[in-house]
Amino acid sequence: MKPVRLIAFTMFAALALTLSARADDPLPSWNDGPAKQAIVNFVKATTTEGGTQFVPPAERIATFDQDGTLWVEHPMYSQVMYCLEHVPALVKAKPELAKVAPFSTVLELLHGDRAAMEKLNMEDLVKIAGATLTGMTTDQFQAEVKKWLAEAKDPRWKKPYTELTYQPMQEVLRYLRANGFKTYICTGGGQDFVRVYSEQTYGIPPEQVVGTAGGTKYSYDKDGKPILTKEPKLLLNDNNAGKPEGIHLMIGRRPYAAFGNSTGDQQMLEYTKAGEGARLAMLVLHDDAEREYAYGPAQGLRETKVGTFTQKLYDEAKKDGWTVISMKNDWKQIFSFEK
Amino acid sequence: MKPVRLIAFTMFAALALTLSARADDPLPSWNDGPAKQAIVNFVKATTTEGGTQFVPPAERIATFDQDGTLWVEHPMYSQVMYCLEHVPALVKAKPELAKVAPFSTVLELLHGDRAAMEKLNMEDLVKIAGATLTGMTTDQFQAEVKKWLAEAKDPRWKKPYTELTYQPMQEVLRYLRANGFKTYICTGGGQDFVRVYSEQTYGIPPEQVVGTAGGTKYSYDKDGKPILTKEPKLLLNDNNAGKPEGIHLMIGRRPYAAFGNSTGDQQMLEYTKAGEGARLAMLVLHDDAEREYAYGPAQGLRETKVGTFTQKLYDEAKKDGWTVISMKNDWKQIFSFEK
Repeated sequence: MKPVRLIAFTMFAALALTLSARADDPLPSWNDGPAKQAIVNFVKATTTEGGTQFVPPAERIATFDQDGTLWVEHPMYSQVMYCLEHVPALVKAKPELAKVAPFSTVLELLHGDRAAMEKLNMEDLVKIAGATLTGMTTDQFQAEVKKWLAEAKDPRWKKPYTELTYQPMQEVLRYLRANGFKTYICTGGGQDFVRVYSEQTYGIPPEQVVGTAGGTKYSYDKDGKPILTKEPKLLLNDNNAGKPEGIHLMIGRRPYAAFGNSTGDQQMLEYTKAGEGARLAMLVLHDDAEREYAYGPAQGLRETKVGTFTQKLYDEAKKDGWTVISMKNDWKQIFSFEK
Repeated sequence: MKPVRLIAFTMFAALALTLSARADDPLPSWNDGPAKQAIVNFVKATTTEGGTQFVPPAERIATFDQDGTLWVEHPMYSQVMYCLEHVPALVKAKPELAKVAPFSTVLELLHGDRAAMEKLNMEDLVKIAGATLTGMTTDQFQAEVKKWLAEAKDPRWKKPYTELTYQPMQEVLRYLRANGFKTYICTGGGQDFVRVYSEQTYGIPPEQVVGTAGGTKYSYDKDGKPILTKEPKLLLNDNNAGKPEGIHLMIGRRPYAAFGNSTGDQQMLEYTKAGEGARLAMLVLHDDAEREYAYGPAQGLRETKVGTFTQKLYDEAKKDGWTVISMKNDWKQIFSFEK
């Protein structure tokens, strides 16, 4: 072969190798680094037959927090936006609420300064949540959430909330499922709310969504048809200690991998890591103010009440062998609509 | 072909056809009849692509009551036997209980007339259940149940309880799974109890067991290791209306098929049947005193408090197009160890 041809051939071969490596890469939106490596190593260790850390397929459970881990949670959790934006419909059905706080306040805010929503206190939010998440049948609630999701837009990206999922995490979900893992959502958000879109948005069926759950009441409608009505009775607060408790209630097995991004996920990660063999515990750190948001207060990032990641949690992660994912450094691309 | 040869050939062909039909029969322990036909028709209707009643695989959910539907529940539910037979171990750990009723009564009965167990009242049973099903870690409870199952024997058949499953129902479970259905247990029994053996006994993984469930409490043991402790706090009473409520909580989809055998299953079957398209609702009637037990009081069978099947339930079944399975007439063989 002539030198020029040889160089051309070598370049071509190198290019082909790169392309093929990319095609084989199950995590193309991840930059090479310890976070990506931790995921790949975990999958290899748990799925290599004959290996000391092999996990039988039936036991391969992975749990994912949702808000801030699988999709955007700032400036406010999507479900809280649902509750607030559902107030007009609620007032239409019950006109007597139009002049009663906090519903009257929400109506004003929706027509004016939406950022002022942050000023609603916890007591207000609990009242609004109670009125917009309970009292209707499970079928009605499902239809209402579906309608809202089809119309509502995130104020920054002007896109439906369900498009604001993190592409790198979608890749992790698919990669784990391709390797025999059952992927679960384990969210502080409402179980019934997330179940409406989990299958279409994440490929996770409703029965694999563990979330904050209220009771329902079985009865019959006027035609004698069975209905389930959502009751204002909390069965599971799926946050903090409620996450491992919810996992036990709904799954009954300890996960081999768990992903979160805030103090609400601490106990789920501890519980996961406390199992034998290879266990993967990861936390997403929102340190990318430009492409998404930056908040902590870990690592000197700004304080927030929405998805708080404290320095204490960061230190526990480092001490106990959890992996902190830097959104800025570990993620090549954040959303599927980028570029 | 000569006539004799022709006859021989025809006979051989007929025999071959019969054998092949048997080999292809997914329900060989069922006698031909309306019950078997209802199951086969349902599976064909829901899995025939292009058919008007086709159900996408992701939505194929089937729920099964356990006691009296999948395994023997007479003379007493196996879990109640576990609670009673666990009292000696409990008293060993807490000697002060030896002289306190109802624990003292149970100790006496275990050494004497075991049939007298039936005389314990509901208050006694609740106390015994509380003491034997809560207060320990989930890992300890699992180990204790596993140990009991390995040693305990049903008094009539002298076999482990997990061998007293109904072969015809095991065939239904496998047949539905082979046709893309996810099979769930939906039991009034304890979720944590049934999950210990559901995978090995029925091929149903722990995450597909919905049962009566109590809360757990997350904490750390003296070495700082996370533990979950079973609390005396009822989250879900998975009986009667609690069955559809539990199905909504744990699965979040309405089943296409549901199987039960007592009034505790009525609402689950109503809820299942209220969905659109082909829905299968079946009730096992224990009318075989010889091979198993006979109780109702439906159809003039004897009264019982364990797995009551009232005439009212029987009438609702007939009126609403549910299928009643006659153990005596529909089941060719009941247990795998027969013959």
